[in-house]
Amino acid sequence: MITRVTTRDLRFPIGSGHGSDAIHRNPVYSYAVVQLHSSDGKTGSGLAFTLGAGNELVCRAAEWMAQSLVNRDIGEIMARFGEVQRGLADEQQLRWLGPHKGVVHLALASLTNACWDLWTKTLGQPLWDHLLSMDDEALLDTMDFSYIEDALSRAEAGEVLSTSRRSRQERIPVLADGYPGYDTSIGWFNYSDEQVAENVRRSAAEGFDAMKLKVGSSDIERDVRRARLVRDAAGPDARVMADANQQWSVREAIQFAERTSDLDLFWIEEPTHPDDVLGHREIARCIGNTRVAAGEHVPNRVVFKNYFNAEAMAYCQVDALRVAGISEFLVVSLMARKYGIPLVPHVGDMGQIHQHLVLFNHIAMDHPLLFLEYIPHLRDRFTHPATLRNGRYVTPSAPGIGGDLV
Amino acid sequence: MITRVTTRDLRFPIGSGHGSDAIHRNPVYSYAVVQLHSSDGKTGSGLAFTLGAGNELVCRAAEWMAQSLVNRDIGEIMARFGEVQRGLADEQQLRWLGPHKGVVHLALASLTNACWDLWTKTLGQPLWDHLLSMDDEALLDTMDFSYIEDALSRAEAGEVLSTSRRSRQERIPVLADGYPGYDTSIGWFNYSDEQVAENVRRSAAEGFDAMKLKVGSSDIERDVRRARLVRDAAGPDARVMADANQQWSVREAIQFAERTSDLDLFWIEEPTHPDDVLGHREIARCIGNTRVAAGEHVPNRVVFKNYFNAEAMAYCQVDALRVAGISEFLVVSLMARKYGIPLVPHVGDMGQIHQHLVLFNHIAMDHPLLFLEYIPHLRDRFTHPATLRNGRYVTPSAPGIGGDLV
Repeated sequence: MITRVTTRDLRFPIGSGHGSDAIHRNPVYSYAVVQLHSSDGKTGSGLAFTLGAGNELVCRAAEWMAQSLVNRDIGEIMARFGEVQRGLADEQQLRWLGPHKGVVHLALASLTNACWDLWTKTLGQPLWDHLLSMDDEALLDTMDFSYIEDALSRAEAGEVLSTSRRSRQERIPVLADGYPGYDTSIGWFNYSDEQVAENVRRSAAEGFDAMKLKVGSSDIERDVRRARLVRDAAGPDARVMADANQQWSVREAIQFAERTSDLDLFWIEEPTHPDDVLGHREIARCIGNTRVAAGEHVPNRVVFKNYFNAEAMAYCQVDALRVAGISEFLVVSLMARKYGIPLVPHVGDMGQIHQHLVLFNHIAMDHPLLFLEYIPHLRDRFTHPATLRNGRYVTPSAPGIGGDLV
Repeated sequence: MITRVTTRDLRFPIGSGHGSDAIHRNPVYSYAVVQLHSSDGKTGSGLAFTLGAGNELVCRAAEWMAQSLVNRDIGEIMARFGEVQRGLADEQQLRWLGPHKGVVHLALASLTNACWDLWTKTLGQPLWDHLLSMDDEALLDTMDFSYIEDALSRAEAGEVLSTSRRSRQERIPVLADGYPGYDTSIGWFNYSDEQVAENVRRSAAEGFDAMKLKVGSSDIERDVRRARLVRDAAGPDARVMADANQQWSVREAIQFAERTSDLDLFWIEEPTHPDDVLGHREIARCIGNTRVAAGEHVPNRVVFKNYFNAEAMAYCQVDALRVAGISEFLVVSLMARKYGIPLVPHVGDMGQIHQHLVLFNHIAMDHPLLFLEYIPHLRDRFTHPATLRNGRYVTPSAPGIGGDLV
């Protein structure tokens, strides 16, 4: 039984240029944490990421929403969480503030993740393990398919799961091998060229064969120069991505892609405004083999449906700390699978929570084994920090979703 | 000089079924009010509408944003407000909470509107009058065209204004005639059938020839019955609209349109989720002469650009209390004009502020003279309430934007 709800407003100024991008020159990594306390002494912790001020707004909204869960049993809540979540998302007094986006949706993300954490801790299982142990119908009951029935009905989602189930065993080895990571910390925006080059060598030595550079400067020459620098330092076999953090117009994005067409960039990430579905389609149509990745600022399954239908993204970077938590993340994963779009989440959680989810996506939905973003700067802030060995995430064993902060 | 910023968190439970829709069965009309106090004793008041709880979140975000305007002169701020607004919208510490949507964007709406109010009060002009007196370049300087250059460049926006300027005189009579209103208060969701029929007769007697019914029930028979009832009571010449408040899937919306195809509905409003641009396009393609209206929950110019490019809405209901205030409203108006889409704003302000804007849109952009929503329930809460005579808004004469509440 959930007896009370508390929140934590945690903010970590990163400093030294770490974490900087074309927008966030002074990043403060912030978490709005919801904690559900149960009568048997367990605490479920959920996170939403906010990257700065206003974290308290998410906490306040989450407290408001969470009241309806007090005095209820977590097992009972999760047995029909899809309905519960829809009720919270459409609650008439808060809905105008979204709907299904911004502060209220981040609050729902944090609360949803706290529910999954309390549930899996109560069952004594790490999230990935619990997800794999669930039968398909019980899993689908944790999801809300409203507004996407025309793209993915519940029945179709069930088919994705049941079809993939037949070949699950083939993909179980990933648990022992570890899910591959890619290194975002080589190329933060404020780093000097020398620092970036040195980081690329350090990263390769640590076992990474994929890494990402922050671009989106007002000076395209700087962006092109640094992309070339990373490719040169990383060698021709490494996968190199460029991330513009929404700073370009459609035309500027295409221009960057043309100027770097010889660098074999694996993707160009967030080239323009995250609401500009048709702008992304235009970019995707123009830039040929350098593919468009987006999703860290796409707020919900409805916008993802539009991206998928428009063929506007090649890699889906849905973030379980941006959409309505693990439940909506899974809905988007199933929809992406149907559309044949690989899922490479943005890790607002430093990979803590998402490591569970990519394991599940690969094993239970037959999503291709790609790589998961890795960012190390808050490593010591987590109780059970994500650990990489030779560039691969070590499969976590602690019960829960992995979001507990010290 | 702006010396300080205050906020007011105003909430008005409506009661008696007034204001109810398919989502808001117990509506609380709420305003997050930003007030900018100047050294010469004037107060600029801006509004954002929230329809419920969480109003305080918008106030907090607006206070945070407004700090950068203190100790500055309103004339200096407005001389380059497009830049100022872009800076506030992309402020690195709050941007993750949007961007450009939800609580932070509502806060920017309220703050922007407060700036326009202080400016026009300082100049001693009602908003419509000041807008008409501005030269085109000064007006364009109050707007932010970033992310929509591919649909409407600043130069193209200037062309819309300069071309329309040549025929302005022909449209000046609307100031004396009054802008036509349409009556949303005939058909709130909770009203009984009898109440609706009686309201239609009352409305017609007051001079309205256009009115709107709330639909979006889980029982399509109820919706169809009530639509028929309104058409029967209003007669064949009245314009009758139906508003589903986002409650349908794409398929359900098409079904309603088919079932009411003989009723000559003027539009079907918010048939499905406001983020579902391509869903609206699908509905628009299927429902023939009953046109799709949407926009009250469309958060910014980028999403409107997508709607326009996709030919997904026939009437644009942008709300200056949802997008980033009067400035972004005007950007969307200019873009809509270029695409040939009529503008019929949603009035989160009861028509107080929007009456100025539709006058300006018609006279200075040659937008067609249609009608503006009218909702009477908070009439007595405003210092200078919008007044209708024979179904037409009486052109306001008080300085400012009209948003002062008692």
